[in-house]
Amino acid sequence: MPSGFYKDSISHFILIFAYHFLAMFQESVHARVFQNYLEKVNFPQEPQHLYDPIRYILSLSGKRIRPLLVLMGAELFDESAVEPALPASAAIEFFHNFSLIHDDIMDVAPLRRGKPTVHQKWNDNVAILSGDALLIKAYQELAKCPTDKIPDLLRIFNATSLEVCEGQQYDMDFEKRAQVSETAYIDMIRLKTSVLLGCALQMGAIIAGADVRSQRSLYDFGVNLGIAFQLQDDILDVYGNPKSFGKQVGGDILSNKKTILFVKLQELICPTDQDQLAYLLNQTIDTEPEKVEKMMGLYAKYDIHTLAIYQKEKFTTIAYEKLMEIQVEADKKQTLFSLADALMHRVQ
Amino acid sequence: MPSGFYKDSISHFILIFAYHFLAMFQESVHARVFQNYLEKVNFPQEPQHLYDPIRYILSLSGKRIRPLLVLMGAELFDESAVEPALPASAAIEFFHNFSLIHDDIMDVAPLRRGKPTVHQKWNDNVAILSGDALLIKAYQELAKCPTDKIPDLLRIFNATSLEVCEGQQYDMDFEKRAQVSETAYIDMIRLKTSVLLGCALQMGAIIAGADVRSQRSLYDFGVNLGIAFQLQDDILDVYGNPKSFGKQVGGDILSNKKTILFVKLQELICPTDQDQLAYLLNQTIDTEPEKVEKMMGLYAKYDIHTLAIYQKEKFTTIAYEKLMEIQVEADKKQTLFSLADALMHRVQ
Repeated sequence: MPSGFYKDSISHFILIFAYHFLAMFQESVHARVFQNYLEKVNFPQEPQHLYDPIRYILSLSGKRIRPLLVLMGAELFDESAVEPALPASAAIEFFHNFSLIHDDIMDVAPLRRGKPTVHQKWNDNVAILSGDALLIKAYQELAKCPTDKIPDLLRIFNATSLEVCEGQQYDMDFEKRAQVSETAYIDMIRLKTSVLLGCALQMGAIIAGADVRSQRSLYDFGVNLGIAFQLQDDILDVYGNPKSFGKQVGGDILSNKKTILFVKLQELICPTDQDQLAYLLNQTIDTEPEKVEKMMGLYAKYDIHTLAIYQKEKFTTIAYEKLMEIQVEADKKQTLFSLADALMHRVQ
Repeated sequence: MPSGFYKDSISHFILIFAYHFLAMFQESVHARVFQNYLEKVNFPQEPQHLYDPIRYILSLSGKRIRPLLVLMGAELFDESAVEPALPASAAIEFFHNFSLIHDDIMDVAPLRRGKPTVHQKWNDNVAILSGDALLIKAYQELAKCPTDKIPDLLRIFNATSLEVCEGQQYDMDFEKRAQVSETAYIDMIRLKTSVLLGCALQMGAIIAGADVRSQRSLYDFGVNLGIAFQLQDDILDVYGNPKSFGKQVGGDILSNKKTILFVKLQELICPTDQDQLAYLLNQTIDTEPEKVEKMMGLYAKYDIHTLAIYQKEKFTTIAYEKLMEIQVEADKKQTLFSLADALMHRVQ
């Protein structure tokens, strides 16, 4: 039996455990309360082509992590603030789904959560306009929040939404660029995916009346956790256990996607290996069946896996430190620590 | 000299006069104040593909009627409210330009204000995402309004924005439908273009602290004026003086566009004339050079011109009545009456 087998089994077990732990959150009281609220939000029947796609995308039930973060951010400071935070959690979920509808048009993606994307099921025009309407519906939920909190909520929500657009634009720009620095890459994932997690938590904190410093720490926890999570996703694409990761290993390599591994390699590679990298980037699975293995060979030569894990750990540590900084009783923070552990596939 | 010449010259003179009158508004103090404010709004340099299209569309200086309406709505109730209303006027202008960017993608329009549209100058993805960012920038302006007014402003702005999306969807739906009732058509133009005029005025009124009843009357003035203006546009396309209308006469007929004239004709036409209408709708200028004249023949037979003018007048009258209803000194309303006159090509 190869020596890696035991280690693989353990990591597989941890992963399965973490997924179950995550599932617990998705079946939590908060998750049920949010789902009930969502079902009561009214979308008119007409015009059909505007509102059917919205009902459709919301029914493709994603992980609903972001609205849960709003409710958990509220609960951290005031348990009675969970209910008043429901419209804000819907605003975050609507915004997230709006961005999925529009991103899928831009990325010409055929599938989302295993089902046809909106532009695929209807057409681009329907996807553009129903996306717009869903973004406006997000603001309509925001307007239902406690009146005295609306100005602050609006400011953080606007700033974040704009950053998410910037992140998507950088992502598209990077696809066309040969060289992307690690700093630029991490900044792109921060904007595209992480700030929304920070924003979700902070909105909850605002509604619970938390002080500005605690709000900021909680925001930073979310952003850093988000970056760490995305880096982990990049790492698992190459080094994950295919049984538990649920995606084709090396998919990012085959599509020449910019990932933390790729940008690190680009920064460190010696001139003598650059020809091989350039060759591999020009190949597909048909012209070079060993593209994934050969790329992994380059990653190994420069110890990219370790360096990427180091980066992931760095952001995870900052996240945990930010959460520790917050001045509430330790046991109140436990749920957020556990969620972070589940997301980062750790077990306490 | 034909007897129509004198009448034509008079109407031409009135139109020119009205345009000059409108130009006066666009060169008014409010217009300058708004332009100054707009120039100070900060759009980051990066990412270029996100913000360059926004700078571009805003530089194609439209009539800026909507932001002027916000400022006039504020001034009607409190002269000192004009300056605090500037962010709201920018929000309305940004929203309007966002909708133009996205509508132009959907309508595959090559030109806007005589210049290439955003999706034409860049591409569809750039137009989708920069449109999204501009919509969010609109909400960012809204967040700069006087804090105690933000919740009310947000509610009317959200409701209106959603209605504009609904109007655009109905407009696209109607293009594919053979039959559209007059009621459905007027409701579509109300949603697509008129509610934003009412919203602009009401937002000004909210900032000036007007009572809810006055706010509502001002909103109704804007909406009804907007409908009347759109009906007039439909009428002028066929019956306008080409010298002053500035568009090709009969353009709507050639493109089979649903207009008040068209939907009225569809409602009134006898079975015996239906074949001719169906024949004309299947022709282009190449297969039937007299398409415009023959369609105008049908319009004449059913007195469509008069009926359409009657409708336009009906909405104009309601608009004026709503403005009269408002309890402020008559001379304060004069600017709005004059603007309405200018828009409706009337001369007091």
